[in-house]
Amino acid sequence: MTLKFSYFGTRGIGEPIRMLLTDQEVAFIDHRFSWEQWADIKPTMIFGSCPCLTMGDKEIVQSGTIIRHLARIHGLNGTNEEETIFIDMFYEGVRDLHATYATMIYQNYENGRQPFIQDVLPEHLARLEKLFRTYENGENFVAGANISYVDYVLFEELDIQKILSPTALDRTPQLKKFHEQFGERKNLTEYLKKRAIMKTPVNGNGKQ
Amino acid sequence: MTLKFSYFGTRGIGEPIRMLLTDQEVAFIDHRFSWEQWADIKPTMIFGSCPCLTMGDKEIVQSGTIIRHLARIHGLNGTNEEETIFIDMFYEGVRDLHATYATMIYQNYENGRQPFIQDVLPEHLARLEKLFRTYENGENFVAGANISYVDYVLFEELDIQKILSPTALDRTPQLKKFHEQFGERKNLTEYLKKRAIMKTPVNGNGKQ
Repeated sequence: MTLKFSYFGTRGIGEPIRMLLTDQEVAFIDHRFSWEQWADIKPTMIFGSCPCLTMGDKEIVQSGTIIRHLARIHGLNGTNEEETIFIDMFYEGVRDLHATYATMIYQNYENGRQPFIQDVLPEHLARLEKLFRTYENGENFVAGANISYVDYVLFEELDIQKILSPTALDRTPQLKKFHEQFGERKNLTEYLKKRAIMKTPVNGNGKQ
Repeated sequence: MTLKFSYFGTRGIGEPIRMLLTDQEVAFIDHRFSWEQWADIKPTMIFGSCPCLTMGDKEIVQSGTIIRHLARIHGLNGTNEEETIFIDMFYEGVRDLHATYATMIYQNYENGRQPFIQDVLPEHLARLEKLFRTYENGENFVAGANISYVDYVLFEELDIQKILSPTALDRTPQLKKFHEQFGERKNLTEYLKKRAIMKTPVNGNGKQ
């Protein structure tokens, strides 16, 4: 069954899913569309929003739903209920940060960028750092020794925050170390190289 | 192990979890706090936000994380992967509606209420109605014959939209029927009676 992942030609909320599929070597059609094409696609979407994962005649929308489904079928959802809860909670925390970031990017970039970098971002990152440290040092993933879907989500989030503010991770050493190490995974390294060549925009409005 | 559910003394995003626990006859301490108390509680919360479910020495925050955990351990998460995906997707669709509603309630009530009722709400409800009808008539729940966590979330959402606009469900007969039937469940009927007496506010700012 051919898997197709449809999203704008940007990173946005689709990028962690592309990374998960690529890194886990799941074959998929990487369908990227423009804002002009979106006008025709939007009315066909279940909630009028994307991303969308198509599997045969089934369509899944909502980035959280898609990534949790992929996590369940590819063993990226924790090895017991406690881990699954932790991964889910961490995911929601990153999602909150991303929502706040996206509101700034799309609605208040000129006036909101500096306050976001100075106050909002450090507070979010400090909380994630503290939660990350729930697990022992020496382990490389959010949930400890095993990779999970939230690692892709966290990596992408840290990556875009570093674009916004290159020193963003200087006060959160665990997150910084995670970001460095995770990006060195073989499949991701290749993907990131290609992405740099493609110059994939971070957001739909050109701000970053 | 004593379960404690902590949230403001409002319905907000905590109410579907209270309903699930009550309807499923899960014993729990229904901890409700005021805005004044919140000032002291907030710094102790993992992401500085609530609700929070406390189980012994474990704390779970994020409403989505809490309800998905409860769903998994109480058999309210679908009977196969396809159902689990559908429930998750429906949940995220309702969450989108609630986020849009909450933005209007907290940030733009005076000017935003009427446009929300006339344009935004009908569009969201029509999409949920269409998705609800994926399953056959005669079945009572979002996922078909079996109750799931999203039923509590959908019921509460429809309930508050009817408060905002009493005719809100007139053009979505499946959702209307679901709302009527689900509210007649024995444990919920009792809960709803008590809530009416308690006059639990829908939102934190008194708007509804």
